[in-house]
Amino acid sequence: MPHSFTADDFEGRMRRAAESCTAAGLSGLVITPGPDLFYLTGYRPVAITERITALVLAPGRDPAMLMPELERPDVENSTAAGRLRLSDWSDGSDPYAALAPLLPDPKGRYGIADTAWSLHLLGLQEALPDSRYSPLTKALPMMRAVKDAAELDRLAAAGRAADDTYLDILKVPFAGRLETEVAADLAASLKRRGHSQVDFTVVGSGPNGANPHHEAGDRRIQRGDTVVLDFGGLMDGYGSDTTRTVHVGEDVPAEVRKVHDVVRLAQQTAFEVVRPGIACQEIDRAARKVITDAGYGEYFIHRTGHGIGTTTHEPPYMVEGERQELVPGMCFSIEPGVYLPGRFGVRIEDIVTVTETGGRRLNDSPHELGIVR
Amino acid sequence: MPHSFTADDFEGRMRRAAESCTAAGLSGLVITPGPDLFYLTGYRPVAITERITALVLAPGRDPAMLMPELERPDVENSTAAGRLRLSDWSDGSDPYAALAPLLPDPKGRYGIADTAWSLHLLGLQEALPDSRYSPLTKALPMMRAVKDAAELDRLAAAGRAADDTYLDILKVPFAGRLETEVAADLAASLKRRGHSQVDFTVVGSGPNGANPHHEAGDRRIQRGDTVVLDFGGLMDGYGSDTTRTVHVGEDVPAEVRKVHDVVRLAQQTAFEVVRPGIACQEIDRAARKVITDAGYGEYFIHRTGHGIGTTTHEPPYMVEGERQELVPGMCFSIEPGVYLPGRFGVRIEDIVTVTETGGRRLNDSPHELGIVR
Repeated sequence: MPHSFTADDFEGRMRRAAESCTAAGLSGLVITPGPDLFYLTGYRPVAITERITALVLAPGRDPAMLMPELERPDVENSTAAGRLRLSDWSDGSDPYAALAPLLPDPKGRYGIADTAWSLHLLGLQEALPDSRYSPLTKALPMMRAVKDAAELDRLAAAGRAADDTYLDILKVPFAGRLETEVAADLAASLKRRGHSQVDFTVVGSGPNGANPHHEAGDRRIQRGDTVVLDFGGLMDGYGSDTTRTVHVGEDVPAEVRKVHDVVRLAQQTAFEVVRPGIACQEIDRAARKVITDAGYGEYFIHRTGHGIGTTTHEPPYMVEGERQELVPGMCFSIEPGVYLPGRFGVRIEDIVTVTETGGRRLNDSPHELGIVR
Repeated sequence: MPHSFTADDFEGRMRRAAESCTAAGLSGLVITPGPDLFYLTGYRPVAITERITALVLAPGRDPAMLMPELERPDVENSTAAGRLRLSDWSDGSDPYAALAPLLPDPKGRYGIADTAWSLHLLGLQEALPDSRYSPLTKALPMMRAVKDAAELDRLAAAGRAADDTYLDILKVPFAGRLETEVAADLAASLKRRGHSQVDFTVVGSGPNGANPHHEAGDRRIQRGDTVVLDFGGLMDGYGSDTTRTVHVGEDVPAEVRKVHDVVRLAQQTAFEVVRPGIACQEIDRAARKVITDAGYGEYFIHRTGHGIGTTTHEPPYMVEGERQELVPGMCFSIEPGVYLPGRFGVRIEDIVTVTETGGRRLNDSPHELGIVR
């Protein structure tokens, strides 16, 4: 079991988030259920529904949380409840009229959780017509980005579980089975290795591997296929996300071998650029240069990486234009790929954390082209 | 396998939704991934992420859909793709600048999917500062409410699977096991009975049953406990949602028996009120009157029901103040309950559809207090 976050941990996170509002030109934050609320309070409601729950943070004020009356016991049982001013609303009443007075300034600008439903933002905009909002990841993009030691432990544990999952999957048969069957094996292994939630199990065989967001379909995998495997989810609230590329059978075509070598070099080159003070876009540029120099630039059609923490996709993004500098404790994916339409794809992805002196991989199963049967 | 929805089905739904905008005072609709997009197009992306996908509908215009470049192949493979004007955006470009020209009037008012991320609504508000938005369920609350025959078939199939799940769970041991263990049995049975997704498996034993949104915890169930079981999810894209209350052992205390009789009568009374033309709030009033007359009114602390379809919670809501009239083909829950703090709870829930002459239950396992061991 990992270290349990305490009420003091959550109070510290809420205080730091509230204090960071001033420099960001915000009067406060409005946080609905999801990864931000989980990070700030440890509270994760049974379901995210049309009934609003919201945490309001503002500099110099105690944190306040509004919830549906019938979910109040769940909040009261959560770790940080004693550090929150709680209020509730009942079915049939207007929750936005109840939420509005928790915001310190009716004409203020607030950061609101990216994933907050439009239903709720529009309710708040109607209740406080002079208030203004910015997406939390734009207003305070780095709120969750720098992980503390206990968070790094959880991410590393999730990464090790993903490594074990990859070793598991190398042993299962591929040829003659459906992509969805191998995907089910990946999911079962992630669960067996400790994940509570599986977010994705991509099995892109042959031409399907050339669609970077193909999940897994009814295609029957054949001997001679190159297969992209991209899998991850949450373990103890923190994410894993690993990609490896395998080949069915030992007769690997020269171009598959060549493309795999290029992607592997791109991934390693980008990894070696990681150190405090480097801009995120430099990670993307480093990977892209290797692939472009090898003549495959037009086939690398996505950014190089994304942050990870209480979600499997979050800022900072490793993309051209992102000037945010790396800071020790940041964690993100490095996942270059090459996608040859109608033929095959190759992607290699690790989760990396920034240390004082460079980068450290949080998952590290073998990078070479895996051979499966 | 149920009837497969065709491109014609989706085109009809999109056309009806677009045409209904005029009467609702809307210039069009903006639909991000989720139950509305699935209903209108059959398309459900691999994951809902920070990368926006949006369908734009407007009267007299062909439907248009914007998606991330790397998800375009997924959209092109979906059933309704041939009826959509497709456009995409690439990582690093501004997706809201790409979305804005798809909206027919930069000063118009649009309905936006309730669950659309605030990130996306704020992006659109910034790209089109004179545009205005309303939540889809307020602007067009009935867009998905009236189900066609194929949809009713799917909801009935999901209801039958939930009935079978209840019969399964009556056979498992309760006394001495954790709530979470019985919840896992419920989830496994729903999956075995054909559900692709389990949305909730509430096991509220003894005092936990008095919290209507308790899910399942570490409490060890004891002989003599009253236990609320509320379970459901999606099967072939359509929802189930059933609640039954059971007692561990045959020695049922008189008050448990009495409260169960009251809730059962309230559920039946509300069911008998269902017919076209009746306002939703009358369903709530009918159930509430039975419970109030029996002296338990203050312990019935939630609305009586909610719509169901491509989600397990949607309009119309059976709640005081909802004057929407029932129409044949609407489907919703009737789920009165009584919650005695610190002691126990009782809830009984069925999914009901409105017919030309009254109501028909889509799940119908026995209502009497189940006895488990």
